[in-house]
Parts: sequence; C-alpha cells; structure tokens
Amino acid sequence: MKYCIGVDFGTQSGRAVVVETGTGDIVAQAVRNYPHGVMDEFLPDGKTKLGADWALQHPADYIGVLETAVPEALAASGANPRDIIGVGIDFTACTLVATDSAGVPLCFHDEHKGNPHSYIKLWKHHAAQKQANRLNATAKAMGEDFLARYGGKISSEWMLPKIMQMLEEDPALFKRTGRFMEAADWVVMWLTGNEMRNSCTAGYKALWHKKKGYPSKKFLKALSPGLENLVEEKLSDKIYPLGTRAGGLTAAAAKAMGLLEGTAVAVANVDAHVSVPAVGITGEGQMLMIMGTSTCHMVLGTEERIVPGMCGVVEDGIMPGYLGYEAGQSCVGDHFEWFVENCVPGEYFREAADRGLPIHDLLVEKASAQKPGESGLLALDWWNGNRSVLVDADLTGMVIGCTLLTRPEEIYRALIEATAYGTRMIVEAFRDNGVPVDSLFAAGGIAEKNPFMMQIYSDVTGMEIRIAKSSQSAALGSAMFGAVAAGAEKGGYNTIFEAAKEMGGVRDSVYRPDPVRVEEYNLLYGEYRILHDYFGRGGNDVMKRLKEIKSRQGRK
Amino acid sequence: MKYCIGVDFGTQSGRAVVVETGTGDIVAQAVRNYPHGVMDEFLPDGKTKLGADWALQHPADYIGVLETAVPEALAASGANPRDIIGVGIDFTACTLVATDSAGVPLCFHDEHKGNPHSYIKLWKHHAAQKQANRLNATAKAMGEDFLARYGGKISSEWMLPKIMQMLEEDPALFKRTGRFMEAADWVVMWLTGNEMRNSCTAGYKALWHKKKGYPSKKFLKALSPGLENLVEEKLSDKIYPLGTRAGGLTAAAAKAMGLLEGTAVAVANVDAHVSVPAVGITGEGQMLMIMGTSTCHMVLGTEERIVPGMCGVVEDGIMPGYLGYEAGQSCVGDHFEWFVENCVPGEYFREAADRGLPIHDLLVEKASAQKPGESGLLALDWWNGNRSVLVDADLTGMVIGCTLLTRPEEIYRALIEATAYGTRMIVEAFRDNGVPVDSLFAAGGIAEKNPFMMQIYSDVTGMEIRIAKSSQSAALGSAMFGAVAAGAEKGGYNTIFEAAKEMGGVRDSVYRPDPVRVEEYNLLYGEYRILHDYFGRGGNDVMKRLKEIKSRQGRK
Repeated sequence: MKYCIGVDFGTQSGRAVVVETGTGDIVAQAVRNYPHGVMDEFLPDGKTKLGADWALQHPADYIGVLETAVPEALAASGANPRDIIGVGIDFTACTLVATDSAGVPLCFHDEHKGNPHSYIKLWKHHAAQKQANRLNATAKAMGEDFLARYGGKISSEWMLPKIMQMLEEDPALFKRTGRFMEAADWVVMWLTGNEMRNSCTAGYKALWHKKKGYPSKKFLKALSPGLENLVEEKLSDKIYPLGTRAGGLTAAAAKAMGLLEGTAVAVANVDAHVSVPAVGITGEGQMLMIMGTSTCHMVLGTEERIVPGMCGVVEDGIMPGYLGYEAGQSCVGDHFEWFVENCVPGEYFREAADRGLPIHDLLVEKASAQKPGESGLLALDWWNGNRSVLVDADLTGMVIGCTLLTRPEEIYRALIEATAYGTRMIVEAFRDNGVPVDSLFAAGGIAEKNPFMMQIYSDVTGMEIRIAKSSQSAALGSAMFGAVAAGAEKGGYNTIFEAAKEMGGVRDSVYRPDPVRVEEYNLLYGEYRILHDYFGRGGNDVMKRLKEIKSRQGRK
Repeated sequence: MKYCIGVDFGTQSGRAVVVETGTGDIVAQAVRNYPHGVMDEFLPDGKTKLGADWALQHPADYIGVLETAVPEALAASGANPRDIIGVGIDFTACTLVATDSAGVPLCFHDEHKGNPHSYIKLWKHHAAQKQANRLNATAKAMGEDFLARYGGKISSEWMLPKIMQMLEEDPALFKRTGRFMEAADWVVMWLTGNEMRNSCTAGYKALWHKKKGYPSKKFLKALSPGLENLVEEKLSDKIYPLGTRAGGLTAAAAKAMGLLEGTAVAVANVDAHVSVPAVGITGEGQMLMIMGTSTCHMVLGTEERIVPGMCGVVEDGIMPGYLGYEAGQSCVGDHFEWFVENCVPGEYFREAADRGLPIHDLLVEKASAQKPGESGLLALDWWNGNRSVLVDADLTGMVIGCTLLTRPEEIYRALIEATAYGTRMIVEAFRDNGVPVDSLFAAGGIAEKNPFMMQIYSDVTGMEIRIAKSSQSAALGSAMFGAVAAGAEKGGYNTIFEAAKEMGGVRDSVYRPDPVRVEEYNLLYGEYRILHDYFGRGGNDVMKRLKEIKSRQGRK
C-alpha cells in the first residue's frame, strides 16, 4: 500500500493528512495551531505596535506544522515512511515572504526582527490599499490589458501592492530583500531546496500570464522607479505548472518530518484551487464552490475568455493544460452569522436550547416549512460588498418585501436565497462569455452540513449539485498532487487527471433541482437581477452615497 | 367655576373627562371598557360565527360609557352638575349603525339580534373590500370627481362599502333599515333626541361635500339600483358643521348621566380631528400629527386644493370655516413593535432587564449615540403599505445599506428615520399643492414618550414641533366643543377658535431643528425620495410582483 501526504496551511493552523494513494481515503490526520497565530496588533516582542489593517505571520509556524503535524499524522496512520511516495502542500495566498538572497526570511535575522516589514504579510493584510489604488489607477491610465483578466480591479491583498508598501515605507529593507515569495513557494523551497514557483499563485495573485509573463518593466517603472527590475531581481519568471515535481525532500527536511530523503514534492498550490481535483473534476463545465464564510467558485475552460467581473483567469492555474477561472462571493456564511448575532430574538435561542438544537438548525427547520417566494422577501447578498460580477466593495446589503407579519426565519431564508442568486449571477456571467457551466460541486462546511441550503442552490441554479466526498478537500488535493509528483512508477499517478479519477470524488447523494421550485425561483431570480443591476450598475448609486455619508460621520 | 364634559369613544373603551372651561385643565376622568369589545369571531350569542375580516360592536356598550364613566368622572371632579355647561363626544369612524325608522339599532330587536348585519360595523370591519373595489372601479369609469378629494381611492372602511355589503348580503335587512348613521351621530341623537349629522364623518367617511353633497343618484344607481335613493331614504343631506349645538340633553339622558336636562351637546366629531383645537391650532400652516401605531396628519387650509394621495379634504371637516386636510402613515409605532418582537437579540432584553429599562428605552439609548447617516442605513417605512402620497397597500418595507457591522439599534433608528421621511413627503405634497405647512404639533403616545424620535422628526422636517399639553387630546377637544355648544353666555365660548386659545395648547418645551443635522438629513431624505419614487411610482414594481408570488404561495 502506498501513501502520500498533503499539508493544508490555513490562516490559524496547518493540517497534515496521510492518504492512501489507491483510493484517496484519508487514513490519518493531525492539526497544529500556529503559535504566533495572526499578528495584527504587535510583533512577537509584544511591544512593537502594528498599524491599522496589518496582518502578519511568522515563518517558523509553518515549519512547526511540518515538524509536528506531519510526524504525528504519520504515526497515527501506521504507514512506513518508505511507503510515503509524495508530499504536496496548499496555502493561503497571497501570503508574502521577504527573504534574503539565500531564501532566509528577513524576520529570522536579529537586525530585522523588530521591523514589521520583515515578517510575512498574510493574505488578509489590508494595509496596502493606498498602493492597490495607485496600481489600479496607473494600469487603467496605461491601458494595461491584464486588468481585464482580473475583473478590472487588483486587490490590496495581492502581491504587487504588498511589495509596493514595503518599498514605500521601508526602502532600505526593500533593497535588502533578495526574494519576494509566496509562502507556499517558500515552504516548497524549504522542503526541496529548490525555488519552484507555482502557476496558481503567480497567475491569480501576481498578475503573471503564461504567454505574456508579468506586467511590463514600463508599467512597473511607472508605479515606482524602484520596481522596474523587480521581476528579474526579486521574483522569477520561471513559473511551473501545477502537477510539476518540485524536487525531492532534502535530508534535513526529511529528518524533521520523519520521511525519507528524496521523497517527491509537488509545486505548491492554493487551498481553494487544489480542491478541484479532490472532488473529481477533470474537465470543463463542472464548477466547484468552496462554501464557508465566503464562497470561492472555480471552473475549468479550454480557451481564455475575458469574463467581466471575475477574480481571475489563469492558464494552468487549477489543472495543467486548462484555463482556470475563479470567481467569488465575499459574504456567505458570514451573512448567517451576522443574522444570528444581530437579528434573532431571545425566544428562538430559548427554543433551540430547550430542544437541544444549534440555533442554525432551528432557523433551518422553521425556514424549511416555507415555499419559494412565500415570505414575499428578496435580499441582495452584499453585506460585505460584491466580489464577482460587479467587483465593488462599496455595495451593501438590502432586504425588500418586509411586512408586519415578516418573521426572522423568513429573513434568514431570504439571505440564503440571495447568496444562491448571487451564485447564479456568476454562473450566467461565465456562460454568457463562453465558459460552459453544466453542473455544480460543493465543498466546505456549508456544503456538508446544510442540505436545506444546498437544495435551494440546486433549485435556484437549476443544476445538480454534488458534494465533496472528503471534508478535507484541500489537504486531500495536496496529497493528490504529491502522488502526481511521485509518478505512476512509484505507485502514484502520471497526471492529476488520473489522480482525480482514482483519489478524488463526491458522495453518493446528489441534490437535484425540483421543476416546480425551479420555476418559482426563475421569477424571483428575475427580480433579484433587476435590483442587482439597478443598485450595482449605476441605476442608483445610493449604496455608495450612503457609505460616503457614513464615513464622513466617522464610521468604517 | 364652569366645566364641560368630553367623551372619547375608542376601539376598546370609552373615556369621559371633566374639564375646567376657563383653563382646559382636566380635573377628573373615568374609563369604561366595552363589555362586548370588538366582536370579530362570534355574535353575543357565542354561537353565530362571523366571516373573515368582520369587526362588530354593540351599541349598548356606548350607552354604558355614558351611564357609568360620565357619572364616575363627575363624582371624582366634585363639580356640581349645575356647573356642567356642555358635553361633546368624539368617535372612531366610519363606525356604522343601522337603525329602524325610529333610530333604534336593529340589533336591539329580538328578530334581528341573530343577524350579524344588525350590529355596528366598526371602523376596522374589512369585509367590504369587494364592494370598495367595485365602488372605486365604477367611480373611475364614470369620471367621478370626488375620487380626487380622497387621494384617488375609497377605503373599504368607509360608509358606502359597508352599506353596499348589507344590501348585497341581506337585502331584506337593508330594506328594513330606516337610517344608516355614524355611531358618533347616533350617540348624539341618543343624548339630544335630534338627528344632527356632523360634517367631519360625512366629509371624510361618506364622500359628502359641502357644495356638491353626496355622490349623485346616477352614480349610486350605477353601484346598485337599490342605492339610488339612499341619501333621502336612509341618510340625510342635512349636515352640520363642527361647533354646532346639536341640542340639549333629554330628560332621560340627563338622568342616566347625572347631569341636568337641557345641558348643551355639540355635534359629534372624530378622535383625530377633534385633537386639532385641543393643541391650540386655530388656522392654516400648523400641522398636527397624532402619533401611535399609525400616524394621522391634519392641517387647515383656506382654499380647497386637490393634493394627490391625501386621505381627504373636507370643508368644516376639522374647524368650521376651514378646509380640513387629512393624511396618514399606516405604520409608525407598529414598525417598532414588529422590530422588537422579531429582530432584537436576547442579550438586549437581558441588558434591559438587568438595568430595569423598557426595551424601547434601551434601543433609544443605543441609537441616540449615532449621528445621522452614521449607520449607512436607509429604510422605506412601508411595512403596512403606504397610506398617503402613494395610497398603495401593496407596497412593502425595505432596508438598504446593511453590512456585517450593522447593529440592531441602527436598524431601529433607520425605521424611526424612515417614518420621519414619510412625514416629510406628506408635508411636501401639501406644500407643493398650495397648502402651507409651517410648523408641526404632535399628540399621542409617541409624541409624549419619545423625545429622541420627536427630535429626529424635527431635524428631518426642519420644523419646530410642539407637543400637546394634554395626554387626552381627543377627550379634551370634545369637551371644548361642548363649551362651544354652551356658548359664552353660559360660561363657554362662542367659537371653537376662542375655546382653542383658552383651553387648548401645548407644553413649554419645543423641539427645534439642529442646523447641522438638518443638512445631513436633507441628503438622506433625497436618497429616500429617489427610492420612494422608484419603488412606489412604477420605476420597479418588484414589491407588487413579490406580493403576487407570495399570495400564489398561499400567504396573506
């Protein structure tokens, strides 16, 4: 029996899984919390205060996951290290490490460890908004065509704004920096000794294009003269497609993890993207939704299409040989948490407690009794702005149709339906622009735990929905890429497509659209769409004007 | 010292007050609940079931108020019956009594008391909607100009639909009916022996116009041949302006109440309208808001103007010699009750309980900390439709601007502000059509108890607001009309204007608009207005389409 190991590096912790290469079954797993967690107030010295919107991590925490969670999972699996044929990892992104020229993170150097810029800027470090704004304005002014591939707007979370921030705020440290790397690639370098940057983060987070490369020197210079030679000096234009073997474990890494030197390691990946093969998707038309506090949508295509308002399209970005399309909804589970915290009466909590039910289950039970449209309510799911299709963080949430008989569970259901309409908007945007979407797959906490919501998604979109077989899709996907790095002759697979067929997959039960409800939801979706366009496409910019007034009154 | 008595007949009870004629001070009062209350399920026999939307009352309950609450208040006042110079009453309307030709309610006859149509149809009897719809359609088809005086739509609560319902459902009883009378006028007849119908209910509820009279025979015949001679046979075209002396107490009435025979009685009035002189309003430009679960707006004018979307304009309808204009908002206090019942988290109730605060006070305390627009929220106050300006019961409520940081008290404040914007829409509709409104007066529970809300109204409308001096404005106003019926030579007043100056009035404190907040609210009101017109004037009839879907799914 052969095994591979997947390591999923999240925001607060890392998880290692040991997976049977033949079946894709997870036979053991272990989690390690990052001792430093997310640093958003102080550096590890407990004294150096961070600015607003900063979010840092410590690279030692990632090594800690490899040194503890991997051996622990391995021990629990009972597998012999000789039978571990490959290792793959996935990461949050853009999570940016600045290293010296030897690849050592700057924060490991005593002379820099009091400097916030020497640490890892986590994906949700939002202190480079000023730089992102300048980047967008400059790109628009110069007519840069990369903008269209990213829905017209580059996020402050991405690589270039974070690099710009360091250059502007600490030019000396910028000069000292040998490499700016995704943490994902840095960990692979730690494992293998090789700098093997992956096509997923390069494409989705660093504006890299397989044929056109990074943004031009001219553009980078226009952002700042100091950036002109950024690519050759501190990045790399050697980008490797997903499924590539990054190398073998170094002796030191192998020892730290309890594995054998030379064990195959795959180039790194991103948590959402690596889940696509884990549910068994191997071609176009099948969209995966990773559903949690927010939702990430991924679908493969055979041609590069510009789909307005998408998060990105990257060749080899999800599966090698395909264009990987990404879209997202910025507020899904978050809506329901907000609702439960702010809008659910005490009597509901008492009823839930009396019956031993989680509050969400009680709300679902009450909401299930309704038919589509029975409440007369309709919502726009923009409590946290709109990430895809409109790409506008300044949009806000709306509920319409309230009467004196409106009940909390009706609003709850309207919020669920609104997120389903939002997903349908995304699906239709893909279809309208030549990227087929024929069926849905779902992974993540909501997909597993909320059949009521999944049925609504099926009825609203009119599509079948299949649920990931594993509740650890990301870690499983990483392990699968490890099996591909090992190759078939070692007991793995030669391509991720073969691995997906054997190791990935979905559960037996399928959500199927109910024709009667589909028809009702077609009507309601039509209404959603009118409101979506009215408030989101310039019919009435009241949401933005209200936000302006709000911020003038001193509120975020 | 001279006194007069006012009796306010409400929906569940009647209240008698004894008022000092010189000062308008209420020296004693007594309340009597109606033993039959509102009959909306069964007749008094406990067996005869009523249809959906029926709401009946028993005339004996009104007499009971006169026989018990009046003597009780009188005794508590210590006044000598000789010093009681006049009596006035006010009532809900249209609250319709069907009597025999001698003025005895049909339900007092044994042969009719098992027939629901023999009882009093209370203002909120809503079972004549079918008839109201036909009335509106016929009036529109025939180009009847009275429609314009009532905002384009006649309510099922008014007199003619209620009469039509009896004619259609029980033609024999209709034939037996000698008089259809407002309960207000019937009680005055009981007191004085005289049928003296008042201009307020005739104008606002029975389509009567001082110069044009009732709708034409031709129109009534078009509704139904049986209605052609309704006015001369069962109503009366003798209508008396408010402030008229209806007569003196009969010996029997005087004895029942413990007063002297011949004591002056005023023609009847309506609870909201009679409050206008009670706050001291004596001319145009001063609008009174009666604020409770809903709000009623009244203002005097010197010329008859057609103000689109108003509830009605009636000459002598509020004060003799003036055009009385009425408008309304169908959901004010009801919004806040809905919110508290459905949207306030348990922890808020716990905090309120811990601190011994009513929940509304806690919400007000939290909401007070905000500046206008600080929440970024805006609402349309249509949880119960829109009564004035748009006159559309099928509109529904909306909240826009929600984010993941939105708090319950912010939504609460947005609802309060929305009702204030709704009032400003009404004020501007009057002004735009030539009816001046320069300052506001407020009466009713909210006006007295919620200074936070009154300040918002002042800031939103940019007008000063004065609060009724008495918390029993209606009963006080009725007593004032009693003093006018008595006349100056008996120690009363010759006109309601003189009575208003001496007996009516407001409290010392005045709500004054804050210039900074006025400016912020001007911006927010501008946004409200855009949404008001978009959703309410055909820009997007989504609210109605959602209601259609809702009713197809089996919901009211």
